Amino acid sequence: MKVTMVRNNLEANDRLAEENRRLFDRHRLTVINLMSAPGAGKTSLLERTVAALRSELSIGVVEGDIQTSLDAERIERAGAVAVQINTDGACHLDANMVAAAVGQLELEKLDLLIIENVGNLVCPAEFKVGEHAKVMVLSLAEGDDKPLKYPLMFKESRVLLINKLDLGPYVSSDPKRIEQAARSINPEITIFPVSCKTGEGLEAWYGWLRRTCAESKA
Amino acid sequence: MKVTMVRNNLEANDRLAEENRRLFDRHRLTVINLMSAPGAGKTSLLERTVAALRSELSIGVVEGDIQTSLDAERIERAGAVAVQINTDGACHLDANMVAAAVGQLELEKLDLLIIENVGNLVCPAEFKVGEHAKVMVLSLAEGDDKPLKYPLMFKESRVLLINKLDLGPYVSSDPKRIEQAARSINPEITIFPVSCKTGEGLEAWYGWLRRTCAESKA
Repeated sequence: MKVTMVRNNLEANDRLAEENRRLFDRHRLTVINLMSAPGAGKTSLLERTVAALRSELSIGVVEGDIQTSLDAERIERAGAVAVQINTDGACHLDANMVAAAVGQLELEKLDLLIIENVGNLVCPAEFKVGEHAKVMVLSLAEGDDKPLKYPLMFKESRVLLINKLDLGPYVSSDPKRIEQAARSINPEITIFPVSCKTGEGLEAWYGWLRRTCAESKA
Repeated sequence: MKVTMVRNNLEANDRLAEENRRLFDRHRLTVINLMSAPGAGKTSLLERTVAALRSELSIGVVEGDIQTSLDAERIERAGAVAVQINTDGACHLDANMVAAAVGQLELEKLDLLIIENVGNLVCPAEFKVGEHAKVMVLSLAEGDDKPLKYPLMFKESRVLLINKLDLGPYVSSDPKRIEQAARSINPEITIFPVSCKTGEGLEAWYGWLRRTCAESKA
């Protein structure tokens, strides 16, 4: 009988995440773990963010996808250095995958590293990768009930971007109800309602990134 | 040192799924495993489907969610018998959870059982639960690139419903491009473009369900 022995995987992951974190801190680099369900707009947010901040901050991006390098290509066109991780079926990034990817980046040249996780509202929230902050995106089209139905990611995230505000007139969800539900799970969460299509609300998000990077350098 | 031994979990799950399947077949019951990312519209589709077919078919629903019984309440209001599974953090349903849930249903009174999986475009596709067919929903708001980026669910599904056609004028995705990408992964897949808001396209889906149930009874 073939038996596979698995020790506490999460514990092993946490140790590797701490190593990643020490590496990032040595470089005074701010690292964001960006998470959402598929299609909430993580890559569109990154395109906008890179284009808006590239003159002030040197930005690197790690793109996590099960398959394809479509997202890394989009990000490089927007003007950041990007490394693609293909997880080959795995539903989240872990600290080991991120360690391999950041080995391909010149960290000493970066101010900000954004790690775009696999599109999944569940599993990525369970795995630290060495980030300073978890940031999540929820599309208005996904519905008001998502914080209560998928609480862990809302609980773990320091920032929630409610994206696709431009769809407001055409869907039944309400950003205020989403905010209320998210705060019932995580009273400290910072919330930015935005539209990556029109640009609405993005200045507040850029301001948060600027402040967070400045704190790492201080 | 504490060591956890895990034999091939997927193999154990497959055996339990076969047991579920034999139980369903004894009752000449058609069982659908309904999957999608969070907020694609699985529960709205079920509300519409139950309301449209309840006079012809006796329908049961198993609702899989990490937390809450919001969905089971919606389905019962629409007129079907519903059992809620709370996975307590798990990102997919497995055969064991489904076995426990169907034990609470009078299967001999049902023609059709729909199992609404946890909202997740990745993990649910890996776990059989004893279903006759996997059916998936993709919202037009999620984007054209999803079949290539999350291929397994598209490969495993017999039917793809492209939902939220009503958002067509306000998003950049195109149902034709989604169809093309889905067929490049699974040439046999049956595709129904629909809107659970306006009802557009749903008759074709109801027809597929009627035919599939009739085949199980034959």
